[in-house]
Amino acid sequence: MELSPLLSDKSILAVFIAVLLLAQASFAGSVRYTPDWESLDSRPLPAWYDQDKIGIFLHWGVFSVPSFVNAWFWYWWKGPQPHLDIVTYMKQNYRPDFTYADFAKEFTTEFFDPYRWAEIFNASGARYVVQVTKHHEGFTSWPSKYSWNWNAGDVGPNRDLVEELSTAIRKKTNLRYGVYHSLFEWFNPLFLKDKANNFTTQDFVLSKTLPELYELVNKYKPDVVWSDGSGNTIDTYWNSKQFIAWLYNDSPVKDTVVTNDRWGTNCGCKHGGFLTCGDRYNPKKKQNRKWENAMTIDRKAWTFRRNAQLSDFLTVEELLAEIIQTVSCGGNILINVGPTKEGTIAPIFEERLRQMGSWLRVNGEAIYGTSPWTHQNDTLHPNVWYTTRKETPGTVYALVLKWPSNLQLPLGAPTPTDSTSVTLLGYNEDIPWEGLLKAPGIIILPPALSVQEIPCLWAWVFKITNIKME
Amino acid sequence: MELSPLLSDKSILAVFIAVLLLAQASFAGSVRYTPDWESLDSRPLPAWYDQDKIGIFLHWGVFSVPSFVNAWFWYWWKGPQPHLDIVTYMKQNYRPDFTYADFAKEFTTEFFDPYRWAEIFNASGARYVVQVTKHHEGFTSWPSKYSWNWNAGDVGPNRDLVEELSTAIRKKTNLRYGVYHSLFEWFNPLFLKDKANNFTTQDFVLSKTLPELYELVNKYKPDVVWSDGSGNTIDTYWNSKQFIAWLYNDSPVKDTVVTNDRWGTNCGCKHGGFLTCGDRYNPKKKQNRKWENAMTIDRKAWTFRRNAQLSDFLTVEELLAEIIQTVSCGGNILINVGPTKEGTIAPIFEERLRQMGSWLRVNGEAIYGTSPWTHQNDTLHPNVWYTTRKETPGTVYALVLKWPSNLQLPLGAPTPTDSTSVTLLGYNEDIPWEGLLKAPGIIILPPALSVQEIPCLWAWVFKITNIKME
Amino acid sequence: MELSPLLSDKSILAVFIAVLLLAQASFAGSVRYTPDWESLDSRPLPAWYDQDKIGIFLHWGVFSVPSFVNAWFWYWWKGPQPHLDIVTYMKQNYRPDFTYADFAKEFTTEFFDPYRWAEIFNASGARYVVQVTKHHEGFTSWPSKYSWNWNAGDVGPNRDLVEELSTAIRKKTNLRYGVYHSLFEWFNPLFLKDKANNFTTQDFVLSKTLPELYELVNKYKPDVVWSDGSGNTIDTYWNSKQFIAWLYNDSPVKDTVVTNDRWGTNCGCKHGGFLTCGDRYNPKKKQNRKWENAMTIDRKAWTFRRNAQLSDFLTVEELLAEIIQTVSCGGNILINVGPTKEGTIAPIFEERLRQMGSWLRVNGEAIYGTSPWTHQNDTLHPNVWYTTRKETPGTVYALVLKWPSNLQLPLGAPTPTDSTSVTLLGYNEDIPWEGLLKAPGIIILPPALSVQEIPCLWAWVFKITNIKME
Amino acid sequence: MELSPLLSDKSILAVFIAVLLLAQASFAGSVRYTPDWESLDSRPLPAWYDQDKIGIFLHWGVFSVPSFVNAWFWYWWKGPQPHLDIVTYMKQNYRPDFTYADFAKEFTTEFFDPYRWAEIFNASGARYVVQVTKHHEGFTSWPSKYSWNWNAGDVGPNRDLVEELSTAIRKKTNLRYGVYHSLFEWFNPLFLKDKANNFTTQDFVLSKTLPELYELVNKYKPDVVWSDGSGNTIDTYWNSKQFIAWLYNDSPVKDTVVTNDRWGTNCGCKHGGFLTCGDRYNPKKKQNRKWENAMTIDRKAWTFRRNAQLSDFLTVEELLAEIIQTVSCGGNILINVGPTKEGTIAPIFEERLRQMGSWLRVNGEAIYGTSPWTHQNDTLHPNVWYTTRKETPGTVYALVLKWPSNLQLPLGAPTPTDSTSVTLLGYNEDIPWEGLLKAPGIIILPPALSVQEIPCLWAWVFKITNIKME
Repeated sequence: MELSPLLSDKSILAVFIAVLLLAQASFAGSVRYTPDWESLDSRPLPAWYDQDKIGIFLHWGVFSVPSFVNAWFWYWWKGPQPHLDIVTYMKQNYRPDFTYADFAKEFTTEFFDPYRWAEIFNASGARYVVQVTKHHEGFTSWPSKYSWNWNAGDVGPNRDLVEELSTAIRKKTNLRYGVYHSLFEWFNPLFLKDKANNFTTQDFVLSKTLPELYELVNKYKPDVVWSDGSGNTIDTYWNSKQFIAWLYNDSPVKDTVVTNDRWGTNCGCKHGGFLTCGDRYNPKKKQNRKWENAMTIDRKAWTFRRNAQLSDFLTVEELLAEIIQTVSCGGNILINVGPTKEGTIAPIFEERLRQMGSWLRVNGEAIYGTSPWTHQNDTLHPNVWYTTRKETPGTVYALVLKWPSNLQLPLGAPTPTDSTSVTLLGYNEDIPWEGLLKAPGIIILPPALSVQEIPCLWAWVFKITNIKME
Repeated sequence: MELSPLLSDKSILAVFIAVLLLAQASFAGSVRYTPDWESLDSRPLPAWYDQDKIGIFLHWGVFSVPSFVNAWFWYWWKGPQPHLDIVTYMKQNYRPDFTYADFAKEFTTEFFDPYRWAEIFNASGARYVVQVTKHHEGFTSWPSKYSWNWNAGDVGPNRDLVEELSTAIRKKTNLRYGVYHSLFEWFNPLFLKDKANNFTTQDFVLSKTLPELYELVNKYKPDVVWSDGSGNTIDTYWNSKQFIAWLYNDSPVKDTVVTNDRWGTNCGCKHGGFLTCGDRYNPKKKQNRKWENAMTIDRKAWTFRRNAQLSDFLTVEELLAEIIQTVSCGGNILINVGPTKEGTIAPIFEERLRQMGSWLRVNGEAIYGTSPWTHQNDTLHPNVWYTTRKETPGTVYALVLKWPSNLQLPLGAPTPTDSTSVTLLGYNEDIPWEGLLKAPGIIILPPALSVQEIPCLWAWVFKITNIKME
Repeated sequence: MELSPLLSDKSILAVFIAVLLLAQASFAGSVRYTPDWESLDSRPLPAWYDQDKIGIFLHWGVFSVPSFVNAWFWYWWKGPQPHLDIVTYMKQNYRPDFTYADFAKEFTTEFFDPYRWAEIFNASGARYVVQVTKHHEGFTSWPSKYSWNWNAGDVGPNRDLVEELSTAIRKKTNLRYGVYHSLFEWFNPLFLKDKANNFTTQDFVLSKTLPELYELVNKYKPDVVWSDGSGNTIDTYWNSKQFIAWLYNDSPVKDTVVTNDRWGTNCGCKHGGFLTCGDRYNPKKKQNRKWENAMTIDRKAWTFRRNAQLSDFLTVEELLAEIIQTVSCGGNILINVGPTKEGTIAPIFEERLRQMGSWLRVNGEAIYGTSPWTHQNDTLHPNVWYTTRKETPGTVYALVLKWPSNLQLPLGAPTPTDSTSVTLLGYNEDIPWEGLLKAPGIIILPPALSVQEIPCLWAWVFKITNIKME
Repeated sequence: MELSPLLSDKSILAVFIAVLLLAQASFAGSVRYTPDWESLDSRPLPAWYDQDKIGIFLHWGVFSVPSFVNAWFWYWWKGPQPHLDIVTYMKQNYRPDFTYADFAKEFTTEFFDPYRWAEIFNASGARYVVQVTKHHEGFTSWPSKYSWNWNAGDVGPNRDLVEELSTAIRKKTNLRYGVYHSLFEWFNPLFLKDKANNFTTQDFVLSKTLPELYELVNKYKPDVVWSDGSGNTIDTYWNSKQFIAWLYNDSPVKDTVVTNDRWGTNCGCKHGGFLTCGDRYNPKKKQNRKWENAMTIDRKAWTFRRNAQLSDFLTVEELLAEIIQTVSCGGNILINVGPTKEGTIAPIFEERLRQMGSWLRVNGEAIYGTSPWTHQNDTLHPNVWYTTRKETPGTVYALVLKWPSNLQLPLGAPTPTDSTSVTLLGYNEDIPWEGLLKAPGIIILPPALSVQEIPCLWAWVFKITNIKME
């Protein structure tokens, strides 16, 4: 029997928590959150988050070395149910005793220029960036004290990738910077031990997860803490509530930080800050709480894949549809890009980001700072979605994914009034319209704009004012 | 003094040539070309070449391992005038004694799927492919007998990249397959010795260049032999005329092969098959002889560059403009793509190629099999270029790079007749037109086609029939 | 300020210790040691250790990859006072961003055959083996739960080097197996943090050192725990006394295990099991407590050095002199060998070990199981050392490092009696002797043994019986 | 059919030879050798060779990277009959597509210090060094013009290993420097083509073997050209006689150079300079012509083997026996050492060489400059061999491999006279002897020399003067 009472003794944990709470009580403060979901869920999200709508997600780590199949490469290679494509790839390209950790040396990042990345993200129209600072592989992109020789300062890059990127983004742009962090690690033996103990011990949480989370927040002051990887267990194992209470009450980012809902199997889609529910969550219906659609431009993977094909990437039309649907239903969208082991953003990703940015420069009024309207998807027209702005009641934005084929766009949701006017964002002149015979509804009659005249491609926004208030 | 009389003795060369000519004379044949430019230049180009118009150029070799700056990486690193960016890159990323040949091991091509490449090239609308089989670095992409341990069979890929690609292209598509081959090699000591001897010796030519050229043609039967790299010396050093005579008279591809003009410093833009003159040759004027514009989608380089940015790649509009100008002036265009060391075609390249293909599926009638018209660039309108087809005299194609801004396209070159009609390729209905007040000339009056109706983006073709013959 | 009260709070440590003591008290047992030096130092050493005399020490780890200069390679490269030879070596042979952890991948051990090693160690005459299982670099040779991705199972060998070697030694030989373990780690950030806190915190000890020590002992059941690396701090930081108490009272090896004295700066040469004092400790005087001379066959280093020269290795004569002096003065000797990254023992080491074994097969009677005599070094003759055996009082062994030049060996320490006889170990016949004129003393008169007759080379043992008891 | 008439046309070869002969005829010179064996074999060996007796052979090349099994690694891996141990080793330690040429990058030689090597060779008592400059793998240790990117200047070392070693040996010692060179190359496609043509073509010889041989001799001026690797064909294919004629008549080393007999399957043990016959040739009988025993200290291989064991190396006794037998029978001995890919000579090799040197410093009089005597092996005593010196007729040296067990050494070959005296080399006093009862013969009666007195170990030389002349 192994003797390490410190790390497994429950009573010590109790002492720990008590000390923590006492320490916290000594701080003066107006509202303080207690480590239970009722209290934590009651905290209003800092306003910036709902206004900003669009973030960039970055999966970049040791998995970027094989950059094959997926960020789950290691798990699908060595986990309980290996995937044949990965097993075969390793057999054909590496010596038999090659280990996953051996990949780290090749994570060279020689071309990583964080200022160039910042410029691209800024041009994309996104308003925040969430960097994977530690995925389920456990490799920390910053030189964590708690992940010695399995971090970007000690192997591979020989750099602090979190420091470099967060600094560049803050210096060069107005974007906010956030961190993705995985609670569990597939193969960390301390986690596996706790798991074998049915999570009655917390060695992993206390010596790894929590120290590194505190370190990460204290050192880099992220405005987003995007948690992931419950490891099939609940919040009490992870001390999630205590950590979030600290984050909200006492952390250096307590006034600005947002977090998500992946803090235990019992939290997803239920507790935390904004809800992310599953990956690529896009319910196409308005939700009661603020939510986020975390999705990726490469349909198949969150990491860069060296052998990805053009058809694997969302077209700009598909990407905009995803944005429009999400914002219309009250969500934020977190758009993932997979940088390379060399430290570059492949041109195909850059292209989608800049295309998105060019569209948003015309149509941002219908996205940033908007709220869901009474209707999300038009009742007559499946390719039309709505947003509105609190400061201009009676105005709605109809975001149209397909240009009206016969120059008639009948919409079922908004009911016009006599003072209604319609404009096309980016186009100077008023757009004619007619009421539908059977109210409610409106027919917009756009002119035949040639490709020279049309203000943008891919999707369009009609702004309809003075509609009938419901 | 070093004694190797065989390889340097001129009289032996004379014997060699005599034997060669005698051997050739023994073949029966209608027309035979003699190894002089008058005779060689008199050979009509096989018809397919002028008809096919568009080829894909592939720079893929050991330079694809650093894939930094350019295919001239080695020369700019170790040559007489090193470039600081390359020298710095090597210092920062490699051990001091690392050599260029050490790169070859990393040319792994693990994802190379020639059938997938063939599908992309086919979809691009190109009609032939020219693969770099040996660049100035000397590394042969096939396992040449004359480049032992410096070829793709012996180091790196452990594959015959020429065999694999040529086979896939021939099996999967109707495209023709050709080879690029560099006469000289920057650092081959035999070449440098000949050069030090003011090219009075031919050791390099006789033991390397010619044997491998014969091997390449005999083994892979290319329809294009795209020569490059004169090494600042003339055709007589290279035995170019003798080789081309063999190619035209006796090679297995004598009926179909085309070659270019880079066979010595005295040949460029003057002798050979089609003329390529300089890189990215685009004279924007009709030429007396058939010519080719060899250009590349990455503005800065012929090889894949790992750190290339989106702005480095031609937009699809720029690419189509190059094609249209080139074809209008009687040229073919050879569009370069740089595959990766892993054996993939990066999505940004794939995207340009498929965009080009989608455009050509609508507008190919104005490209393939066309001839230059009386005018190339319109006299009034700088963004309009013409082609015509021999089988339909009186018809011209006006290729328009910018959609007419006010739905009026006045053209100065074609003079309409009463029976003139105008159509837009890909659009079913007749397009109205008017004569210009001051003949010659025509005003095309396209309708206001919305983005849903317009048959393509980026460039458009008006077909004008029954114009006045000049 | 960073918040991790658990690991730094002193009161928790107190709880921890209390729990530990209570747990221990619950075990029944005759003699129990308390965690104070008075008690711990009172434990008699298990008898095997004093009897076995000779051990093999093995320095094998990531430092075996550069295998240059020394096992302190990392410290002398990146520590506060870099050594020029190492800095230069790295500059000349590696890319600038290469890190020490990047070496681990090259620790391949492809030729490691533990059964072959066991055979060599057995043939050497050594009776125990001490393997470096973790040096100051922190890399564990077993897949420790507490050193994830910085251990031989996760990077490099992909093997459990401790399991393999301990098993082979136990299965193939009668040698005992022990482990070397470094308390501190030069660059472990948790250690550096504790150090920066003047060792008022114990994060490193509690989450790393102790868990892995328990794991190591519980899993591999070593008969020697050879501690090293105090990190310039004392036993209370390391919880050394508590650990040793556990080792003596409750560990699976409590009846057989021995440990040394390197458990804190205040322990060396003072507390623990046997004393090792400094490296290569050879006081040439009898000591009050059992001690060990840890030395190495390569004069300059404890690790294999790829560029070592013959003169760097002790000659067999020098090695035997060390053994003889050490055993004569009551010490054990731990002879170090540096295996290669490939997993081999270089022939020069194998040769010294087999030479030693051949000598011990003749002369082992004067080494194994002996005790120091009244005298150690002879009073007249500096090249003669004595041992004796408790079971045969009146008999001494004179170990002679140089064959008597004129066939006369006058010794000042033993006084013969009438019944004294002298023999040469390995030689069958009695050796003549005379009393010294001025007693005490004896002159041994060995015959002129030719190289064919002499029982061994390098050193010889005269066994003198029935001497006058003092 | 492939057309490369130049390289395969026999008539051109004829021209070549004619030109060569004419060129040679223009040189003035006393004795000139013609390219036939009668003439070439008639050349007296330069005197230094027979006098120097002992050389060092160095197998160092790309095979030193795997340094596993043997210098024939490549052939036994990829040749017609693969060896299981090598195939398995590659499978277990390398990616499937790894090629032999990929090894070259790891031939780093970072510790190669030619002056240190020179010092060791000098201390060994050897008088010449023969470096493998190109083995059957074809990799040249100098930057040959004819082996581009497959030589030590272009891949791996980035150094001229021949220049560096030859210079150091000449500057630091009086040893002579020679080169080993393999005519054939297992996998050179030009050689394989000639072979497929039943050696009716000579492409390989004319473009590779001969140019590089001339280059090697002209550039490095070796005193030994040690040819190997007939490729199972005869001298006429290799132009051996012409090359040797040039070597003897016109090369820069014509007065000092020696060569061996491996110039074609019809030459071995028959034609050339000294005869080497098979590897490890030790006929133990006097030969009619000067011969050489090329052997290696590692019993199993000519290259360094990373996994070699002590028992694989000859003991110093075995090595001296080999030397003594060889010299006694009129041979020279060429003792092979396998340096490492790092550029070191492993200590076990250094030890054997220095042991040999220490023995030769005592006994060199019986080795250097000696001639075979009437008898080689004694008629009574199998462990005794003889040499003599022309300048002292009547004196013989009896080289004794085992010290006389009972201090009597009866010899059957030399017949003493009254004035005969016997001495032991390295020992100052006369040694008693008696005549054998049944002449011829002598009994030497060495004194019982203790290990302190005996002048050397391992083997001994009795010098017997004024014996009866036969």
